[in-house]
Amino acid sequence: MRIPSGVSGFDSLTDGGFPEGRLYILSGPPGSGKTTFSAQFLTKGYENGERGLYVSMHETRAGIIQDMSGYEFGFDRAMQDTRVHFLDALGSEGKRFFGSPGERVDRNSLVNRLVGFVESRGIDRVVVDSTMLLRYLMDDDENTVMRFLNALKRTDATTLLISEMTDPSAYSDEHFLAHGVIFFHNYLKDDQMRRGIQVVKMRGTPVDTDIHQFSFTPAGIVIEPETQAEK
Amino acid sequence: MRIPSGVSGFDSLTDGGFPEGRLYILSGPPGSGKTTFSAQFLTKGYENGERGLYVSMHETRAGIIQDMSGYEFGFDRAMQDTRVHFLDALGSEGKRFFGSPGERVDRNSLVNRLVGFVESRGIDRVVVDSTMLLRYLMDDDENTVMRFLNALKRTDATTLLISEMTDPSAYSDEHFLAHGVIFFHNYLKDDQMRRGIQVVKMRGTPVDTDIHQFSFTPAGIVIEPETQAEK
Amino acid sequence: MRIPSGVSGFDSLTDGGFPEGRLYILSGPPGSGKTTFSAQFLTKGYENGERGLYVSMHETRAGIIQDMSGYEFGFDRAMQDTRVHFLDALGSEGKRFFGSPGERVDRNSLVNRLVGFVESRGIDRVVVDSTMLLRYLMDDDENTVMRFLNALKRTDATTLLISEMTDPSAYSDEHFLAHGVIFFHNYLKDDQMRRGIQVVKMRGTPVDTDIHQFSFTPAGIVIEPETQAEK
Amino acid sequence: MRIPSGVSGFDSLTDGGFPEGRLYILSGPPGSGKTTFSAQFLTKGYENGERGLYVSMHETRAGIIQDMSGYEFGFDRAMQDTRVHFLDALGSEGKRFFGSPGERVDRNSLVNRLVGFVESRGIDRVVVDSTMLLRYLMDDDENTVMRFLNALKRTDATTLLISEMTDPSAYSDEHFLAHGVIFFHNYLKDDQMRRGIQVVKMRGTPVDTDIHQFSFTPAGIVIEPETQAEK
Amino acid sequence: MRIPSGVSGFDSLTDGGFPEGRLYILSGPPGSGKTTFSAQFLTKGYENGERGLYVSMHETRAGIIQDMSGYEFGFDRAMQDTRVHFLDALGSEGKRFFGSPGERVDRNSLVNRLVGFVESRGIDRVVVDSTMLLRYLMDDDENTVMRFLNALKRTDATTLLISEMTDPSAYSDEHFLAHGVIFFHNYLKDDQMRRGIQVVKMRGTPVDTDIHQFSFTPAGIVIEPETQAEK
Amino acid sequence: MRIPSGVSGFDSLTDGGFPEGRLYILSGPPGSGKTTFSAQFLTKGYENGERGLYVSMHETRAGIIQDMSGYEFGFDRAMQDTRVHFLDALGSEGKRFFGSPGERVDRNSLVNRLVGFVESRGIDRVVVDSTMLLRYLMDDDENTVMRFLNALKRTDATTLLISEMTDPSAYSDEHFLAHGVIFFHNYLKDDQMRRGIQVVKMRGTPVDTDIHQFSFTPAGIVIEPETQAEK
Repeated sequence: MRIPSGVSGFDSLTDGGFPEGRLYILSGPPGSGKTTFSAQFLTKGYENGERGLYVSMHETRAGIIQDMSGYEFGFDRAMQDTRVHFLDALGSEGKRFFGSPGERVDRNSLVNRLVGFVESRGIDRVVVDSTMLLRYLMDDDENTVMRFLNALKRTDATTLLISEMTDPSAYSDEHFLAHGVIFFHNYLKDDQMRRGIQVVKMRGTPVDTDIHQFSFTPAGIVIEPETQAEK
Repeated sequence: MRIPSGVSGFDSLTDGGFPEGRLYILSGPPGSGKTTFSAQFLTKGYENGERGLYVSMHETRAGIIQDMSGYEFGFDRAMQDTRVHFLDALGSEGKRFFGSPGERVDRNSLVNRLVGFVESRGIDRVVVDSTMLLRYLMDDDENTVMRFLNALKRTDATTLLISEMTDPSAYSDEHFLAHGVIFFHNYLKDDQMRRGIQVVKMRGTPVDTDIHQFSFTPAGIVIEPETQAEK
Repeated sequence: MRIPSGVSGFDSLTDGGFPEGRLYILSGPPGSGKTTFSAQFLTKGYENGERGLYVSMHETRAGIIQDMSGYEFGFDRAMQDTRVHFLDALGSEGKRFFGSPGERVDRNSLVNRLVGFVESRGIDRVVVDSTMLLRYLMDDDENTVMRFLNALKRTDATTLLISEMTDPSAYSDEHFLAHGVIFFHNYLKDDQMRRGIQVVKMRGTPVDTDIHQFSFTPAGIVIEPETQAEK
Repeated sequence: MRIPSGVSGFDSLTDGGFPEGRLYILSGPPGSGKTTFSAQFLTKGYENGERGLYVSMHETRAGIIQDMSGYEFGFDRAMQDTRVHFLDALGSEGKRFFGSPGERVDRNSLVNRLVGFVESRGIDRVVVDSTMLLRYLMDDDENTVMRFLNALKRTDATTLLISEMTDPSAYSDEHFLAHGVIFFHNYLKDDQMRRGIQVVKMRGTPVDTDIHQFSFTPAGIVIEPETQAEK
Repeated sequence: MRIPSGVSGFDSLTDGGFPEGRLYILSGPPGSGKTTFSAQFLTKGYENGERGLYVSMHETRAGIIQDMSGYEFGFDRAMQDTRVHFLDALGSEGKRFFGSPGERVDRNSLVNRLVGFVESRGIDRVVVDSTMLLRYLMDDDENTVMRFLNALKRTDATTLLISEMTDPSAYSDEHFLAHGVIFFHNYLKDDQMRRGIQVVKMRGTPVDTDIHQFSFTPAGIVIEPETQAEK
Repeated sequence: MRIPSGVSGFDSLTDGGFPEGRLYILSGPPGSGKTTFSAQFLTKGYENGERGLYVSMHETRAGIIQDMSGYEFGFDRAMQDTRVHFLDALGSEGKRFFGSPGERVDRNSLVNRLVGFVESRGIDRVVVDSTMLLRYLMDDDENTVMRFLNALKRTDATTLLISEMTDPSAYSDEHFLAHGVIFFHNYLKDDQMRRGIQVVKMRGTPVDTDIHQFSFTPAGIVIEPETQAEK
């Protein structure tokens, strides 16, 4: 089954939205739109009556609501509903949940607790912001990170994992592990910075893999499907 | 002897298909077609009455069947037959087989068990998805990985090993070790993403080493032999 | 709320200045204007009656005043007022505060003391010069650095963190962690070195992300908004 | 004294063949012709009544004969004669000889045994396939590898060492250590993959160091001396 | 206050010479003019009645005098005066001063002794040749190197630190730490090697940051201010 | 004082030859002429009645004489005279001298013995082939290598050190340490490989730093000073 992304113009690139229950990676440089896309995704689920979870190391709940306050797609309403959970990995609740780095938490049980949280609450859409968070919380243990991602893939939730792209010339393990990979691009055209989005991979779905321009509008990210970006 | 690949247009690049009983590497970026090629390969063997084995760390049996459900080449029928085995390295069966990373499993005996599985069941076609899996299961021990690949080369099965390509400017040890190497390319042409496949190496066989365009069709990957890709 | 940057032409790129209470990274090669920008930022706050803190490993208070003595924007007046604190990490006060590298200071308590300093004194604007300082004081412990940055993000102060850019082709963790990222560029045009500034990222704000030329004038950095730099 | 290479067109690039009793490196990407060149070299020696040794980690004797079965230069006859020895480093004989990696074999005595094998049997031509083998057997101990290569240089045999080229932009220690270095190139020309061979270095011999195209023919590698490859 | 560099044409690029009492880095490839510039700088101070110190690991006093003997700017006279000190880090005096690498000298006390030497003798101009020396003497301890540079910045002396540039695409920590950075360039123009000098950074001073051609003349380095180098 | 290089056309690039008693680096890819240049250098000294020393890890005395046997500049006569010493680091004499790697030889005493050998015998010209040798004998201890090079600089001998260039985009410490640096280039021109030589650095001497073509002739390397190489 397909679930709508909540991002205008995106679903037509992917034959109708995200195949449900799978893991997708959003990769791109700083400021390229990964968080805004994720906020629209979570809000769309909320509007459809689904349950959501946003796990962040970067922001408090108030901070991310403020980040999105310039948009009108209703992220604040979603975040204030009990159906949408927010886990601030560095706040007091998050510390109870994850422990502090350096503490010898049982990493297996951490994976189990996170997956248990998703499953016991019947979460439909998960956003994990970000792989940097995972490496930080899991003490850079690649095997634990991969075990966590594999465990997430086996839940019924549809997950977006925000992945910082530090070296744009190399792929990461999570790109291969995920069901889908979406790249966010910043590029110069006629001496102006343009924004682009590209569905690099999506298993089990015919996709349009070209780079498409998008804009940040009051309604959030809007992809212009008719204009094909030249890179 | 040659065995047909099951991928339309591929066998004519390799003088009639894969030389039997040997080890081939499929390398490429995420979403470039490595898994689909492998699924067609395994299905073709099934249709010819052969026995198959798919070893995956990335997916459950259900997940990979779903991934291929958009194609009509019959992967689901193959996977549901007892002649085709599926080993989910991270599922309960796989854990019994491989142990968990970190557990001090005897890695020599792991290699022996995998090879014994292939030999005792008379497996004809093996897909190992992927080198990331091998490194994960074998605790990044390059010597164990190489011993495993060498052991696979010495069985009678024809093996496809999916190899993630994280740095496209460098070759890996497995490229040199294998009997054949097939690269999957994504490239821009006239502002559109194109797909390409290239037989970089195939021992004992005259091969067409040019890059050839291919498409994802309902019948799976279809190589257009007449159109030579310009890169 | 927006706070003015104190840099002529900058606020119009960012819809009216910096969103308050957040963390911004200034990145660029040596001599590209990061320190001058920071000095103007701190001075502007001082002129508006705010409290400031400049943490430096590179310079003494006298040294940085001398560095800015060629400008007329009033940095020396600001630095001599009790509302603006200066912490010379390598001077005697700084050593009392931070300890010496190699000394087994409790790094958690160091983070707490710095954040406590900001909070107890009601500091409005903080400049941290630089990430090299942080890594040096925190014994290259990335987790401590990130914990410190996250703690700063949670204070009410608006913080500029100067980040040395040693490898211009890669992003750093702090670029992803920050609310905003500003790049300083040096580039050749018509055989002359030009200066450019670029707001790469600023959460919650529509920004002009093009590269804009700027000059060092007696009034400090002046951005020429009408001239769009070609890179 | 010169010894003929057995590769059509090669000897005219090197003033009549390989200077005898020395060590040569064959370097190139996967599938570029290194093994085929080596097989022709060994066969030529056999035809001239010389003794040969092929040390392989990659293949069994049967496997390499099969690899070369598409050619008509008589490698199988050579390999079945008692004058040509084959050492399969991973087979039972090889394990007796080399031990297994990880086993604490005395590496000095391993070097001595290999060199002793060559000297006691009066081997004239040696092929070592490959440096990956050496590093694997010698536990990545560069000093042992270099000692082995230096010991080989001091025997009377003429040795070809196949060297995997993982990073084409860098030379390896063995390139400097060897008496000669031959590069195998794959390159695009008029949108087709071409094969090239280049004698980069050969001590004591005037050589043609240009890249020359070659083809894989039923007679093995045939260099086209009149056509100079443009790269 | 400004102090003259002693290099013809340089002071006009920097608004009258070097701001006094600060630390400058000279960076460039081998043979690009860093040592000659430093010798002119030290000689100029000597002619003005100042005290100097040249710390070298590369050369003896006699060696560096010989190196400069082809020039007529009077380096030998300066070096033979008691006002100019020479510390040969590898000679017997230097060893007494610095100890040998590997000896467990107290590195803090080494920093203190060097700074004490500068301060107690009232040295006005210091040349440290080179960062390689510092890393060698300080056992590659980056923190000790940085502490030493920071201590030098806090003396009254004006210091030139020669910095080998091994990777021209990356900046080093010392480039950010210094008050000024001067790059020496070698580049091809009309098929001839040209020399260029560029003031990349100089705090507190309006500078001409273009690349300027220079020549090695009997009077030492002479910058041609009217000719702007095209790179 | 200048000493002639023995290489036709070279001395005119360096104002009359090598400044005496100093250390020069010859750097280049495999097969680029470093060893031949060194052999001509040593032979020229022999012809002028000087004493020489050739230290090699790569070759036996017989091997290097054979390498040079295609040339007519008289290297064999020089090598057979008692005034020219040859030290085969891997032969029995060399092992007595250097010990074997891994043996815990006192590395300080090794440096002293080598320098003592040069000084006690009054050696005028030294060739060290190569930095790989030094790193191998000195167990990769960079400080010992640098101490050795510095000790050589302080003898009266003129030394050529052959330096393998594995990464052509980076300089090595020895390039900065040496009095002079000579690069050997291989490059394509009009589709043919050309040889080039370039004096990158030579302290105390006005030099022609352009790339000059050279040929391997029966008389050894001959530089064509009138033809300036375009690279």
